[in-house]
Amino acid sequence: MEFLLNNNSQINPAGLKAIAHMPTTSLGVLMDEGYTQRLSDKDFMRIAVYLAEKSYHEGGCPIGAVIVDNKTGRIVGKGHNTLVQESHPYNHGETAAIRDAGRIDFSQTTLYTSLSPCDVCATLLYMRGFGRVVVGDVTNADGNENLLREKGIQVDILEDMLGIELYARFRAEKPHQDMEDWQGMSAVNKT
Amino acid sequence: MEFLLNNNSQINPAGLKAIAHMPTTSLGVLMDEGYTQRLSDKDFMRIAVYLAEKSYHEGGCPIGAVIVDNKTGRIVGKGHNTLVQESHPYNHGETAAIRDAGRIDFSQTTLYTSLSPCDVCATLLYMRGFGRVVVGDVTNADGNENLLREKGIQVDILEDMLGIELYARFRAEKPHQDMEDWQGMSAVNKT
Repeated sequence: MEFLLNNNSQINPAGLKAIAHMPTTSLGVLMDEGYTQRLSDKDFMRIAVYLAEKSYHEGGCPIGAVIVDNKTGRIVGKGHNTLVQESHPYNHGETAAIRDAGRIDFSQTTLYTSLSPCDVCATLLYMRGFGRVVVGDVTNADGNENLLREKGIQVDILEDMLGIELYARFRAEKPHQDMEDWQGMSAVNKT
Repeated sequence: MEFLLNNNSQINPAGLKAIAHMPTTSLGVLMDEGYTQRLSDKDFMRIAVYLAEKSYHEGGCPIGAVIVDNKTGRIVGKGHNTLVQESHPYNHGETAAIRDAGRIDFSQTTLYTSLSPCDVCATLLYMRGFGRVVVGDVTNADGNENLLREKGIQVDILEDMLGIELYARFRAEKPHQDMEDWQGMSAVNKT
């Protein structure tokens, strides 16, 4: 049992949640290659949703993202919205995960986001040359999937009900925070 | 002499450079209201250029930005590109200054950038409702000024030769770093 998550481990919420919360650079002490290789699109999306849930419990906006290397299947970046936590006016799930990944070539990676990307994040995704983007919620927001496809990115929709319900709950509870996150404080002040 | 920079101080490079390097939240101990009120568009642009110079000396991309409250004339955010310094794949001058300013209403502010904004930064500028943007270099890059104007932002061009020469020197010295900053590592790997 060199690793908590190994080839014999069941893939379950406890493991995926631990992956979401573990710093990316330390994931190698949590799980071995055998476990990593068995993670599916659905599992990576669920990790993004657990990151969204982490943000929600911190009082933040519940949106998370995970970036996976297509060849190795390893997570190379992940993160969640930090509007509240860092008083950060534009750090969304996608920007957080890209910041976490650092200066890598994103063309051979897939980004999983728990919510459809905003204009800024969509622009960043094509400016950084992503090869594939998987979107976990086109119910609470949508629209930029077409822009990404026009830019040559493979876009897949893989809705995760846990994330969709969480975001809908957040939006009902904190409509101003939701609006600030999308359109900035200037839009909130106009209401 | 309660302040190093006061109503009697000449506005010169030493003072503007000190402002560029001083943390934003500490600017109130460096200069008084009388000095602050006399700063012009040209001075704020030069502060953005000194931030670009700071980044250049750190081995980074020489692009800086300053955000000023239109009513008070106070600097509420500033920063420079940190691609190299933070291994940050998209932190440009504008994003750095906006992050520094935090969760404020940007509609009553002006952003001074030493270089014409990229697609991501231009998108962020209108998504965060900026009222006015002043661009210090449309020689080394340009194009998104029209997009900003279409979105209702007042855009003024105020070229600063110190910044333009600095950016041209950087681009000649480190063409790959320049390309990575605009198009990401995937574009560099294709060359």
